[in-house]
Amino acid sequence: MKRALSPAETPQVGRSLPRLESWLKVTGRAEYVHNLRLPGMLYGRIFRSSVAHGRIRRLDVSAAQAVGGVHRVVSAADLKGIVPDPYYGPAFHDQPVLAVDKVRYVGEPVAVVLAADPHVAEEAAHLIVAEYEELPAVYDELEAMTSKAIVHDALKPAGTFPDLKHLKGRTGTNVALDFHLRRGDAAQALAAADRVFEHRFRTQQVMHTPLEPLVSVAESTDSSLTIHTASQSPSFVRIEVARLLGWPENRIRVRVPFLGGGFGAKLYIKLEALVAVLSLLTRRAVKISLTMEEQFFTITKHASSFRIKSGVTRDGRICARECEVWWNGGAYADIGPRVTQKSGFTAAGPYDIEHVAIDSYALYTNLPPAGALRGFGIPQLVWAYECHTDMMARELGIDPIEFRRRNLLRDGRPQATGTLMRDAAIEKVLDRLAVLLEWNRPFDRGTGVVRRGRGIAIGFKACVSPTTSLAAVNVNGDGSCIVYCSTVDMGQGSDTAMAQIAGEVLHLPAETVRVVHSDTDVTPYDMATLGSRSLFHMGNAVKLAAEDALKKLNQLKSELQMPPDAAIPEIFKKKYGMQAGNVVGTGSFIPSYAPPDYATGLTSDATPFWMVGGSGVEIEVDTETGRVRVARLVNVADVGTPINPKIVETQLSGAAIMQLGFTLFEKMLFDEHGQLRNASLAEYKIPGFLDMPEEIINEAVSAEQRSGPFGAKGVGETGTFGVSPAIANAIHDAVGVRLTVLPLNPESIFMELQKAK
Amino acid sequence: MKRALSPAETPQVGRSLPRLESWLKVTGRAEYVHNLRLPGMLYGRIFRSSVAHGRIRRLDVSAAQAVGGVHRVVSAADLKGIVPDPYYGPAFHDQPVLAVDKVRYVGEPVAVVLAADPHVAEEAAHLIVAEYEELPAVYDELEAMTSKAIVHDALKPAGTFPDLKHLKGRTGTNVALDFHLRRGDAAQALAAADRVFEHRFRTQQVMHTPLEPLVSVAESTDSSLTIHTASQSPSFVRIEVARLLGWPENRIRVRVPFLGGGFGAKLYIKLEALVAVLSLLTRRAVKISLTMEEQFFTITKHASSFRIKSGVTRDGRICARECEVWWNGGAYADIGPRVTQKSGFTAAGPYDIEHVAIDSYALYTNLPPAGALRGFGIPQLVWAYECHTDMMARELGIDPIEFRRRNLLRDGRPQATGTLMRDAAIEKVLDRLAVLLEWNRPFDRGTGVVRRGRGIAIGFKACVSPTTSLAAVNVNGDGSCIVYCSTVDMGQGSDTAMAQIAGEVLHLPAETVRVVHSDTDVTPYDMATLGSRSLFHMGNAVKLAAEDALKKLNQLKSELQMPPDAAIPEIFKKKYGMQAGNVVGTGSFIPSYAPPDYATGLTSDATPFWMVGGSGVEIEVDTETGRVRVARLVNVADVGTPINPKIVETQLSGAAIMQLGFTLFEKMLFDEHGQLRNASLAEYKIPGFLDMPEEIINEAVSAEQRSGPFGAKGVGETGTFGVSPAIANAIHDAVGVRLTVLPLNPESIFMELQKAK
Repeated sequence: MKRALSPAETPQVGRSLPRLESWLKVTGRAEYVHNLRLPGMLYGRIFRSSVAHGRIRRLDVSAAQAVGGVHRVVSAADLKGIVPDPYYGPAFHDQPVLAVDKVRYVGEPVAVVLAADPHVAEEAAHLIVAEYEELPAVYDELEAMTSKAIVHDALKPAGTFPDLKHLKGRTGTNVALDFHLRRGDAAQALAAADRVFEHRFRTQQVMHTPLEPLVSVAESTDSSLTIHTASQSPSFVRIEVARLLGWPENRIRVRVPFLGGGFGAKLYIKLEALVAVLSLLTRRAVKISLTMEEQFFTITKHASSFRIKSGVTRDGRICARECEVWWNGGAYADIGPRVTQKSGFTAAGPYDIEHVAIDSYALYTNLPPAGALRGFGIPQLVWAYECHTDMMARELGIDPIEFRRRNLLRDGRPQATGTLMRDAAIEKVLDRLAVLLEWNRPFDRGTGVVRRGRGIAIGFKACVSPTTSLAAVNVNGDGSCIVYCSTVDMGQGSDTAMAQIAGEVLHLPAETVRVVHSDTDVTPYDMATLGSRSLFHMGNAVKLAAEDALKKLNQLKSELQMPPDAAIPEIFKKKYGMQAGNVVGTGSFIPSYAPPDYATGLTSDATPFWMVGGSGVEIEVDTETGRVRVARLVNVADVGTPINPKIVETQLSGAAIMQLGFTLFEKMLFDEHGQLRNASLAEYKIPGFLDMPEEIINEAVSAEQRSGPFGAKGVGETGTFGVSPAIANAIHDAVGVRLTVLPLNPESIFMELQKAK
Repeated sequence: MKRALSPAETPQVGRSLPRLESWLKVTGRAEYVHNLRLPGMLYGRIFRSSVAHGRIRRLDVSAAQAVGGVHRVVSAADLKGIVPDPYYGPAFHDQPVLAVDKVRYVGEPVAVVLAADPHVAEEAAHLIVAEYEELPAVYDELEAMTSKAIVHDALKPAGTFPDLKHLKGRTGTNVALDFHLRRGDAAQALAAADRVFEHRFRTQQVMHTPLEPLVSVAESTDSSLTIHTASQSPSFVRIEVARLLGWPENRIRVRVPFLGGGFGAKLYIKLEALVAVLSLLTRRAVKISLTMEEQFFTITKHASSFRIKSGVTRDGRICARECEVWWNGGAYADIGPRVTQKSGFTAAGPYDIEHVAIDSYALYTNLPPAGALRGFGIPQLVWAYECHTDMMARELGIDPIEFRRRNLLRDGRPQATGTLMRDAAIEKVLDRLAVLLEWNRPFDRGTGVVRRGRGIAIGFKACVSPTTSLAAVNVNGDGSCIVYCSTVDMGQGSDTAMAQIAGEVLHLPAETVRVVHSDTDVTPYDMATLGSRSLFHMGNAVKLAAEDALKKLNQLKSELQMPPDAAIPEIFKKKYGMQAGNVVGTGSFIPSYAPPDYATGLTSDATPFWMVGGSGVEIEVDTETGRVRVARLVNVADVGTPINPKIVETQLSGAAIMQLGFTLFEKMLFDEHGQLRNASLAEYKIPGFLDMPEEIINEAVSAEQRSGPFGAKGVGETGTFGVSPAIANAIHDAVGVRLTVLPLNPESIFMELQKAK
């Protein structure tokens, strides 16, 4: 493919450019870690715990070790020489590379069989025998608050977050973090309110289901380690593995090619520490690739319980709100405590409420660990507060949109933390939802068996802060350009967006810009690809880097006394006498931030930007079966000014459809021993083509994030916010029953219909 | 291996640190391209011309194509769609990727067999049949000046060097470049001189013999190409392959791991263009690795002829010198014209001569191409001018050291080009040679069959100019450091030196600094690793980059109001609230330069620095066999202030021993049809342990290159300068015969002894 290097004639930002990697992907040439084979590589197969909580009494690997072709069977005892303290985690150092003495959930890795042939490793893993002394277990987040079954003997905060320090060594509790926010006096205001409403909601445990399962490969020498991994956070992996091994960062290289989806599943340490120590132990390259089944035992989305209580004035203004949220974090904290805190402070919703009290608890239980999943806790919160909003509006006899409009949090007003709202087009989103749903027109509610209903919901989210992104932009002697950034393109189109930003600054067609994939030896530090932060943070860093390169080119021009319109290759030719040299610009971006007061949760600067999104649906409920069909799904969002409108649209619909699965049918089903009953895509249903709404409309409202690159901000999660409560609200609108527990599957709707009869 | 990250307590520059990669190399874990296998990779085996000059009448690949397992047989006709104009080269675009219509030397690549099994490819290559219409050929550089056999129909200068432009399209000549220098009036001064001496010298064609033969691997998609290659010039490879394909640079990636020696053999394009087009043609990864035999047909060292004529005054001052040098460049120019010019201007030697005339000619012949080989032409020149010096001194009855001392080019005096000498410790080198050889003590000349003699020689070299090096230095959140530079470590210890320079600036132990290997996607532009330029140019760039990183760290310190002695990890922790982030410093270095006047060869600024070296030997000649044994070899050099004294020492002895092989026995022997008769290490002898001198002394004189990094300058070639003439001078000293043609093998010495009887 020859690509002309003529300057761009049109703006690069705002173009609906097809994703740059499309061709590679459809021709099967895109690089994925699953395709990586290294000479002499061993495949690891994980042997997992069959009990939810227990002491390992005996581990017999002799039969596995005796299988022909098995290189070695490894358990925690074998790792001591390489990693003396094998506990990792972004918030707590609580998760062992392989189970040490105890297991804490069914499916926890206990041992690994290594063989040159992955089938040999798998067969041998079946021959491992473990005996456990079972311990009392706890599975429910509310029970975990008071249960005698304690998952961790003592809390081990990582020291990364100053607000976790006080938890160090705390014993006898399953609460990994309790976040509290107090604004005004909610109790007094509730007592004084004209009407008070209180409801409870729950969400279920679900899985990210990236279609590319987790996979990592490590290769090592005695003094260096390279990890090829399907990770959203290469910089974190390097730093955390360096900490585990006691090595300096520059001896560890983490490479990430394309990802087949991430959604938060591929953050922090998953298989990376394990393959790293196995490679150092065996002096061989080691690969572990999970099956889809094993992903259920690796990382999930928090189940949650939410008690919400609001006081409303006579004129329909919400004057006070109390929120209590319990997050079921499973056996290891992962980033759960951050979810608890970062989502916690928006638990009261996008409403202008004078008195707010929020309590949010991260809980350990004996289930597979829960972490970040597209929305970082926000969909669980919006589910509750937007059902609650609808329930209140209907009780009050106010149109749900009108009720929301009366209470909206408008720019310039303080959010619950005290941070003033800015560049958050909440009202525009609500207005466009009403318009697109033709809210004020007559609506056909159906008759007979099939009844129709409508519902809407809006939500908002802060962006994790403060986090850093660095980028470099290289301009070659022929004027061609390479962008270096550690943002991971996992399907969201970040490569294309970064190319557009660099192209815009340098007047190059984005198609000609190359974006080098994450490699800690190559691309500068980035916190991680998560929480819709990349377009804003890395976009700003890439813009700064491109501007820096441009500045250096302009300096060369004036140093060489060339006219301002001289083409880039001419500059290099004049400088070096031939096609030679390059210019590197660098950019570093960290937004301002004010940490919250630990006691009150208040801060003047909670987030670099606000994501705002809402959904509206028209649905049909089959009253005989309880089945819901979504006829229309409208997603509206404030994404600032889109860099690539087409990608924004697919991000919105992709997120909404993912949330549709969580809303209507996805659920991890556990038995009373903590054993997952549906750990396969045959039994755990994700949305298919037949589940698609007949019509999907996605719209970004006209908006600008003034601090964003060319006015843009993140969009990866926004489409998830409103879907679940919009559907629950529509079900109520259609058939008059109110569901407060996800998923809204036919069984639960049918049961409610029966009860209502 | 755990490495503490405490600050360095002692200076890093000046340490005789063992090479950083030693452990990797002795444990067999160092990365070489020969070990690279890629999925689906094809191996290419080259079918080569059996005639020295001819038109390809017929090429029958059908039998080869029919061999089971052969993927494809490719000749020039197959490449047209991918590379319409398949001629490459750094100075002339004269060399085809595969022979087009004509062949110009025995061994020229004509076709390639591709197969998944390299043995299949090799077997099939034997079945290819080519028929040629033979054309008159020319092999000798002097004959090539006037021969009717013309190697290239028309000259095709690359346009890279402005001084070649006037040659474009010139026909009917084998002269690829003629360089002329005129200082004063040599003819008149010779006529007026008290004594005039004129001699002729020759050198033979030899090979670089890197123990790792040339090897390249290419992999491609439709829009990107990665070349893994054992190359000294990754940046050039990228730019030249981009030119051939018509692609922008940013679609092409050139990676270079360790090299098992280079010596100039692995410069510019060797196998890279071939594997690139084969990969694009077959859509597979393609590897071509040469055998040792094939290296003889790829790149060699120029044979040369030198006529030198000096006028001397009564008091032993050289007042005028005429030099005519003819370089046998073989069938393709490679960098030969540059050798002609860049070496040409020092052909008159390190002497202060008022009237100088130099004519230097690059010639095409029908032999394997000649390029740069450790010294870039200088050893051929020193061979001639230092034999000449000795012959004159003996004729004049002046001690050879005393004669040199009277004529030395001292700092502040103009060299032949007019450039004033600076930081060139020529006299110190001569003085130390005299001291170490105990020149003024009585010397045992032997009796009977074995006679003993002593000889010395000194030489100097300019550094190719102007050339650019860029570097980046990354400091991680934990204070660990990575150096990015495209200098290729081919055994010379550049990684270690760069780590010492970065460590010195950043106060880090050099052992903890990582140096990332050349990768055009990763490491910034560098002209190439050649001509002893890297320590000076890249050393300066790395120093600037490290200083830039330090400046940024200090800015952070003051921005964060931290004390000046705050440790690096503390800065990042304070900035980011955790171990995060990094700082990238960049450095760009290009020395000043004034291009020579084309007519006179004069310039005020010919070189960024001067390399100065000399050797002295004590030898024994067996008068019955003509065999020479070197008893003592003393190498003295001005290397500025050594960064790593131990590496300097091994560079000096390594270079001198390499030159010892070229002096005493190495020679490519061609028959009258241009067929090489000794293309194997069984028949082409390189120095072994039994050829080592009994005693080797290497010394760097106390010196400083003020423009170099910490006073240092290049040393890779310096040890080669004086060896050949010192030995010839010693042979004369021992047995009274004067050899003027290299090598000084027993046969030629025996013949001269017979003649002298």
